Amino acid sequence: MSENVAIIGVGHSKFGTRKDVNIPELCWESMKPAFETANLEPKDIDFFVVGTAGMWSSEQAVPALIAEYADLAPKGSMRVEAACATGNAAIRVGYTAIKSGLADIVLVLGVEKMQESPNPTIIEMIGRFGSYFWEFENFGLTFPGYYALHGTAYMLRYGATEEDFARVAVKNHYYGAKNPYAQFQKEIDVETVLKSPYVAWPFKLFDCSPITDGSACVILASEEKVKEMGIEEKVWILAQGVGTGTANLSRREDFTSLASARFAAEQAYKIAKIEEPAKEIDGANVHDCFTAPEIIAYEDLRFCKRGEGVELIRNEQTYIGGKIPVNVDGGLKAKGHPIGATGVSQAVEAYKQLLRKADPGRQADVRNGRWLTHNVGGTGHYTYVTIYGLEKR
Amino acid sequence: MSENVAIIGVGHSKFGTRKDVNIPELCWESMKPAFETANLEPKDIDFFVVGTAGMWSSEQAVPALIAEYADLAPKGSMRVEAACATGNAAIRVGYTAIKSGLADIVLVLGVEKMQESPNPTIIEMIGRFGSYFWEFENFGLTFPGYYALHGTAYMLRYGATEEDFARVAVKNHYYGAKNPYAQFQKEIDVETVLKSPYVAWPFKLFDCSPITDGSACVILASEEKVKEMGIEEKVWILAQGVGTGTANLSRREDFTSLASARFAAEQAYKIAKIEEPAKEIDGANVHDCFTAPEIIAYEDLRFCKRGEGVELIRNEQTYIGGKIPVNVDGGLKAKGHPIGATGVSQAVEAYKQLLRKADPGRQADVRNGRWLTHNVGGTGHYTYVTIYGLEKR
Repeated sequence: MSENVAIIGVGHSKFGTRKDVNIPELCWESMKPAFETANLEPKDIDFFVVGTAGMWSSEQAVPALIAEYADLAPKGSMRVEAACATGNAAIRVGYTAIKSGLADIVLVLGVEKMQESPNPTIIEMIGRFGSYFWEFENFGLTFPGYYALHGTAYMLRYGATEEDFARVAVKNHYYGAKNPYAQFQKEIDVETVLKSPYVAWPFKLFDCSPITDGSACVILASEEKVKEMGIEEKVWILAQGVGTGTANLSRREDFTSLASARFAAEQAYKIAKIEEPAKEIDGANVHDCFTAPEIIAYEDLRFCKRGEGVELIRNEQTYIGGKIPVNVDGGLKAKGHPIGATGVSQAVEAYKQLLRKADPGRQADVRNGRWLTHNVGGTGHYTYVTIYGLEKR
Repeated sequence: MSENVAIIGVGHSKFGTRKDVNIPELCWESMKPAFETANLEPKDIDFFVVGTAGMWSSEQAVPALIAEYADLAPKGSMRVEAACATGNAAIRVGYTAIKSGLADIVLVLGVEKMQESPNPTIIEMIGRFGSYFWEFENFGLTFPGYYALHGTAYMLRYGATEEDFARVAVKNHYYGAKNPYAQFQKEIDVETVLKSPYVAWPFKLFDCSPITDGSACVILASEEKVKEMGIEEKVWILAQGVGTGTANLSRREDFTSLASARFAAEQAYKIAKIEEPAKEIDGANVHDCFTAPEIIAYEDLRFCKRGEGVELIRNEQTYIGGKIPVNVDGGLKAKGHPIGATGVSQAVEAYKQLLRKADPGRQADVRNGRWLTHNVGGTGHYTYVTIYGLEKR
């Protein structure tokens, strides 16, 4: 058993429309740099976990595919899924495999190849990650609609406007433009967002994260292995919290917050002994599948009080230099959202930020040495919150 | 952290064609008895894991569905998949969650509702758990064909016959007839198998496990919790091994054995300090998705030497009273094979056998207090081997 577990290697593929590669090739794009940064070879891996939603893909057995392609067989593996929180769920399985003592070195891969699926089909399939039977099948809701219900509830209660939501997209595109792995490397302004076509009021095209192909990879190791290998560049997993929501939105008490996110965050803060998150954490990656949910995440994570998230974005307090930088890799909005890869990509970003390896113009001031990731599946059906640190607990 | 983890509650639904229930109802059929045997309520659960392959199902978010139905929210959850080894993979996630100290009590549910999907579609979908691109798409192989390649290789090398394979089905139907949860509660003879129509030579209809709806549930607890609650009826997880195979059968050295199964078994035996499995273990549940693979499993698990598995079934050595009883709950063949539930169902059987709670006529002599489960995904793409014991390690 290992009290502490660290990320010792990371890799990230280019996110976007990746019809140039098949699934194992797309996986290898992030696995190769992960092996290189960890200074390890496939034979050193004890266990590997693949996070992929994948039901739109012809290939179902991704762990076996990469076992063969990257020579990881006969080591054990599994696939993990928690809708759009799949990546962070996969990290949990790697984390507990090491912390329990069953493995010393674990590879965690997140991957999704979504562009192959015809567009109406994929929107339909993603929609099933909401409440299939009631909201999706009976009311025809898909994800823009699910989250628009949250956006409008937030507008009504706290006076947020479509311009406020647009500011989230502007920020995330601003940083996405500086991230060479991002799907959209282009700055936009509030006007661009407001003039884009409506998808589900109040969300327009530029309020929505895109359909993305991509992979991300982290290699985790036990404290003993870190010492034995003399690894200097590593980031520790300080805490993880996880929560589940009801299947039906109608069973939720409130649409301006996600109960599973609050639960997961408080669990993680308790373990990491964090009382004032915005002061003790240097930055965060939150699940901005749409613009409004990023603002709701500020509040669920206690970066500010309920109802004050909109002030954070209005006053540019989640840019670098502000109260707490958020999604300075472009977020799901501009970096892209390959479902299974997103949570792992967030971990890659935590590693880069804490080790001051972020690209020029998007390196945060990491004085506390702590970074948070917040990964939501469905409409709060699953939330995973993980806190990373330069120093062990 | 908890060195030892125990099963403290179990539940099992009726396996078969279950068009009478929806997914949460089918889940609750096994969850309810699991809560009752563990003397716990949903609020006592720290974390829950759902094993389901589920791509043939409309419902994708089963953890969120049961979170709502069984009042498990806001506790954390995820879905796990490793093709037909999904159930045992889910147990691994529950096991490591507790062993790592992140949870004290975890509910592990395996479920599959397959009969809703039209038959040609489901056979096609299951086929994707082989090598999709090469063997399935190009050569049109589905699972009876994949395993028939193994069966014929075994016949050629060791002189096994169709009658020998039929004997496995006869044994498993014999015990299935005594298991009230089994899909087929009817004894058959060798003639019945031999006269049934060919599916993929040498396999006939009665050599194949069926398409099944069902769920199974175990509740796991830490050693500390077991003590605190004063639980008398429990079974410890002594060891687990896990292996992965290549995606393509063409990359395997041999079709008379599964490399991932041998790897997983040896890993488990090493942890449990077992040298002579057939002497030190009282019985096993192995992955008889077809008849021949049960014989191959005897050898991969070292119940006998390579090539001698066929002698075990010819001489009725895997019946109760023989060298080592195997699948005395009916196995996948007669009990049924709801993919995600199978591995969990095997754990339920281990619990019942070791605590001498098996149904009349199918209780093994459990003098060593150890039971093994062997759960294979794909054609050896994943193998999970778990050893349970009455005494802690």
